[in-house]
Amino acid sequence: MNAEQFRRAGYQAIDRICDYHVTLRDRPVLSQVEPGYFRKVLPSSAPTQGEDFQLIADDYQNTFEGILAELYASSTSNPGFNWSVSPAYTKLEAVVMDWIAQLLGLDESFYNISEVGGGVIQPSASESALVATVAARSRYIHEHPQVAMENLVLYTTTQTHSLGKKAGLDDFALRGDTLKVALEEDMNAGFHPFILIGTVGTTSSGAVDRLDEIADVVSILRVTKHYPFLWLHVDSAWAGVAFVCPEYREAYQLPAINSYVDSFCTSFYKWGPIQFDGSCLWVRHRKHLTDALDVTPVFLRTKYGNALGLGKRFRSLKFWFVLRARGVKGLQKYISDGIKLNTKFAQSIYEPELFSVITKPSLAMTVFGLAPKSSPQLSTPELNILNRAFYARLAARNDIALTQTDLNEVFYIRMVIGAEQTLESDVDRASALMKSEAMVLLKK
Amino acid sequence: MNAEQFRRAGYQAIDRICDYHVTLRDRPVLSQVEPGYFRKVLPSSAPTQGEDFQLIADDYQNTFEGILAELYASSTSNPGFNWSVSPAYTKLEAVVMDWIAQLLGLDESFYNISEVGGGVIQPSASESALVATVAARSRYIHEHPQVAMENLVLYTTTQTHSLGKKAGLDDFALRGDTLKVALEEDMNAGFHPFILIGTVGTTSSGAVDRLDEIADVVSILRVTKHYPFLWLHVDSAWAGVAFVCPEYREAYQLPAINSYVDSFCTSFYKWGPIQFDGSCLWVRHRKHLTDALDVTPVFLRTKYGNALGLGKRFRSLKFWFVLRARGVKGLQKYISDGIKLNTKFAQSIYEPELFSVITKPSLAMTVFGLAPKSSPQLSTPELNILNRAFYARLAARNDIALTQTDLNEVFYIRMVIGAEQTLESDVDRASALMKSEAMVLLKK
Repeated sequence: MNAEQFRRAGYQAIDRICDYHVTLRDRPVLSQVEPGYFRKVLPSSAPTQGEDFQLIADDYQNTFEGILAELYASSTSNPGFNWSVSPAYTKLEAVVMDWIAQLLGLDESFYNISEVGGGVIQPSASESALVATVAARSRYIHEHPQVAMENLVLYTTTQTHSLGKKAGLDDFALRGDTLKVALEEDMNAGFHPFILIGTVGTTSSGAVDRLDEIADVVSILRVTKHYPFLWLHVDSAWAGVAFVCPEYREAYQLPAINSYVDSFCTSFYKWGPIQFDGSCLWVRHRKHLTDALDVTPVFLRTKYGNALGLGKRFRSLKFWFVLRARGVKGLQKYISDGIKLNTKFAQSIYEPELFSVITKPSLAMTVFGLAPKSSPQLSTPELNILNRAFYARLAARNDIALTQTDLNEVFYIRMVIGAEQTLESDVDRASALMKSEAMVLLKK
Repeated sequence: MNAEQFRRAGYQAIDRICDYHVTLRDRPVLSQVEPGYFRKVLPSSAPTQGEDFQLIADDYQNTFEGILAELYASSTSNPGFNWSVSPAYTKLEAVVMDWIAQLLGLDESFYNISEVGGGVIQPSASESALVATVAARSRYIHEHPQVAMENLVLYTTTQTHSLGKKAGLDDFALRGDTLKVALEEDMNAGFHPFILIGTVGTTSSGAVDRLDEIADVVSILRVTKHYPFLWLHVDSAWAGVAFVCPEYREAYQLPAINSYVDSFCTSFYKWGPIQFDGSCLWVRHRKHLTDALDVTPVFLRTKYGNALGLGKRFRSLKFWFVLRARGVKGLQKYISDGIKLNTKFAQSIYEPELFSVITKPSLAMTVFGLAPKSSPQLSTPELNILNRAFYARLAARNDIALTQTDLNEVFYIRMVIGAEQTLESDVDRASALMKSEAMVLLKK
């Protein structure tokens, strides 16, 4: 959709919202549909090729890709409590999450239609991790009622957590042996690890935890130590989006996700054509989620089932609009274009023997620093000073926005390519200006 | 703003979004402002009379009441992490929350400009309560590091909690004596109550906890038992909105809120011209919030300060649009019109000697049940059966939407008036159809 197509669809959206409000008095106050109608009228997967937006618009009665969906979603006062007050909210979300599960190649046990597992849209990846943690803790306490709350341990693998600082990290990813030692230490000390939040594509460096090794360690402990309840949650907020392209599934551990994890999260707003908010969370057993979180008060209990949360926005609408308008092919192109551009960027950075790339380019992200071959004698603290000065020069410019990170006390710069409008010429310009800023700095 | 005004402003919004995207390449990638610019250019309180929307639209550069704000907010990919990436997000929120604090008559210690307390927008009232609880727990544990986690106790006053079921409830509100007994019992048993979530205007019945009595009990215990840390959070999700009309402040405990509570929440999406989501949370000491929740990762640390949360939507924009378009007078009219209509409804319900009203009408809500004077011998279980049948008849209709509740095992029906479009004739029609459904049922 280009700007002129957006203008036409936007005017139409405004007109339809006006019509809706003008005719509001003549409409029934309750929805005129029966439970189950949604699955019947919607296809069971996202279209392969993108559809014409007029078709999509016509399917949203009374009332168009990301911005238009948010406009429509905000045009009615729709609390989203439960099926009875907002049937389209609750059902479209269930259908769209199955579309996305297929799109990413997730195992069918995660589909809503399985009626065992299922997917829900959370505001952000943080909320997804929080919901998984609450469900895991609730399950653990239910099964081990004698365990004191402060002996429960949550494992994460970010560089800020002590586990992440241990020696077993390889390319900043968690390995099985590290986990094994940590689990045994903690369990011998009387602690109860109840959840491990693994990461596929960390924000700092793009590291991918070895879920296969992690699953092996957990499986062995399950058998030998009667320890059945370490919940595996995988946070793949930005990298997971790349699963839309089958060629990245193996390298980014999708087979292990499909075989072993209890919950999985990815967020198209981090990388993709869907604006914030809306993080996709799937669980293997929806029961653990509902057991922990269903607190439906009497005034929201209806014959069509209870609320899973209280109020929520109509987030599934933008996923539906975007998936339909782009199709599987359109999303794949979005992702692979970004990866191609980043590969080009990383190659251009290697050339002048000025930079070091910390890990291999990770999808659409390169983490790098100045490490001039002409001064091989520089120590890490000296390189950090040099790189902070380099970053300060780049941050002072108005034509580029980069971010910084700290990996085992080494200062690095992060280059991320995510916007659809980014062209090869932008990447060329970015690497050219980095080289020239580096040269100016090194001359000083 | 009527539908035709919305249509014009909507077309304009679409045009501006198109212009923005077409000219994106020529714009600087970072914001061109310095910290502090926002306070300087914005008035320190909401306008008394509503402003013309063209003025408001012109203030949102590149880019109009609730729907239009959401449209604009969704038109840029703005992560809202911190000041550096999204200065307008973080600063408009601080300014608008001070506008609303003034509008409600909150004590100045809650203002952001106080730099001690402050207000933030959370997605919903549940998140506001969660954030307050996390901050209270963090403060408590910090001060009492020896206390075991499972001995911490959270007090709420909803009818579902055991405390709410105790005898001291008066009109379903918590009284000081009840709290005193509960606190002493729990403390003698080795438990540590660390937060009390009081309610001003419960969802079920509109009950108002006696915050003055609660504060007295807590103050005495603070002195006599060296017990300094029971955090008082007041959830006034829907009723608190009525503080925009000064005549309701006394009855709904605003003086006690201003004198005693640690945090206070109200949600204009529950009752008011601002659509979901966006709940207003104020704390007396922002330090407790930041100590508990600031986890800024390295890649988001900037010279302009750290992130308080990670990604967030630009929610303050709709508050800003609505406050400016309606002005204080407009919001006051919205609220007082709803209360007037509900008073009329409650009076019409009393008339035919068919109904009992459970508590006095609460602002814009009436909680009532069938209790025909002609059958004074009916027991509570018999009345419950009658009222469930009555509610089922009403729920089967397409022209009215009501909700149910359960107050100490008595079934009641809730009539809530919140929409701006509701007319006196709608209320007359609602009470007429309730009477006729009741008569038909009673004849059976």
